[in-house]
Amino acid sequence: MRYELYYWPSIQGRGEYVRLALEEAGADYIDVARRGSGTARMMAMMSDKRSDTPPFAPPFLKAGKLVIGQTANILLYLGGRHRLAPKAEAGRLWVHQLQLTIADFVVEIHDIHHPLGPTLYFEDQRPAAKRRTREFRDERLPKFLDYFEGLIDRGGPYLTGRRLTYADLSLFQIVEGLRYAFPRTMKRFERNVPGMIALHGRVAERPNIAAYLASDRRIAFNEDGIFRHYKALDL
Amino acid sequence: MRYELYYWPSIQGRGEYVRLALEEAGADYIDVARRGSGTARMMAMMSDKRSDTPPFAPPFLKAGKLVIGQTANILLYLGGRHRLAPKAEAGRLWVHQLQLTIADFVVEIHDIHHPLGPTLYFEDQRPAAKRRTREFRDERLPKFLDYFEGLIDRGGPYLTGRRLTYADLSLFQIVEGLRYAFPRTMKRFERNVPGMIALHGRVAERPNIAAYLASDRRIAFNEDGIFRHYKALDL
Repeated sequence: MRYELYYWPSIQGRGEYVRLALEEAGADYIDVARRGSGTARMMAMMSDKRSDTPPFAPPFLKAGKLVIGQTANILLYLGGRHRLAPKAEAGRLWVHQLQLTIADFVVEIHDIHHPLGPTLYFEDQRPAAKRRTREFRDERLPKFLDYFEGLIDRGGPYLTGRRLTYADLSLFQIVEGLRYAFPRTMKRFERNVPGMIALHGRVAERPNIAAYLASDRRIAFNEDGIFRHYKALDL
Repeated sequence: MRYELYYWPSIQGRGEYVRLALEEAGADYIDVARRGSGTARMMAMMSDKRSDTPPFAPPFLKAGKLVIGQTANILLYLGGRHRLAPKAEAGRLWVHQLQLTIADFVVEIHDIHHPLGPTLYFEDQRPAAKRRTREFRDERLPKFLDYFEGLIDRGGPYLTGRRLTYADLSLFQIVEGLRYAFPRTMKRFERNVPGMIALHGRVAERPNIAAYLASDRRIAFNEDGIFRHYKALDL
């Protein structure tokens, strides 16, 4: 089966967590909106009155007849099919729980540059963004990263032990993104989370991920995505 | 089996979505932190170095040996056990997708009064909150509610058709909370979403839910929770 991934064509965004899982799995997929009139097709699927299960927003994945929305939900589906999560219920729920915690962190990372709401431009909310960054750096960033580090500390080298799951791929992306958005902050902070940095390196070296990162399927970070590099918001 | 729910004892918050599911199911549970030294026990479970699966934050549910965190993940677990979601994969994923969309909406509702971050007081971010409210009222509230209304329009009376799911219980709570937090805004807006208002009424009349709402197990809305009534933020 060839999967169809629907996501905005010019950013990594939330679609990237799905792309990383598909790539690691070596799955056959097309990134629909990056081809021809794919974005129009994506918009049409969201507003299709005949669909019983229209997604609220991208990303969503077409898998045969299924159309699955919400990043963590897509990963829940893929995890069971591509050995990116345990099959047994306890392990499956635990990996999903970690993914949802990563999703919460992603929201807070996004809110740094959009504290006054998602539809205003960054330039229109710069002072509020600076204020929010302070709280993020002093409270939230350490709280989330220390939590994940504590899990790796329990055994490692991955979040849940010796086997890679989709949550590890997402945590890799978190480190990638934080390094891009806040290089100075991360330079100072990384010494506190050696397990996570090692995990990041280990994921980057997996053959399918390494090939993906070197390909033009990987969109570069930019200031339209979730992780944005604004000097004013770094240390 | 008696479930143990762990959540902050003085607010509805995210725990309420779990409480509503447990109550509708007529499940045997205790709301641990509302008894004696329950809050201390909850904190100890989160920082327990011997636990392999410590939750990042409440709510979490102890179900036998399992400890399950993240609201939507807890509902995914309960849905299959208490006929609050379809058993087949497609339906199960669709209901979970709706729940995750509701969770995104809850984050935006919370951010209205905490645009500069979760650890500052509302009083310290009032102007930013007023600014964010405008965007919420004009853009985000209609976008989310119209989406859910469109789903009910496809058949109803519930989100996915004739059978109640945990996502309907959560949507009930959204209407309850919005009415509490923004009574004037909602008074004007409700005429646009008659299906959702009917769904709310239908859930409120279900025997187990009606009994719960009338009991002291239901904590009253207050200004420490997610839905807060600040006159400055209403119309």
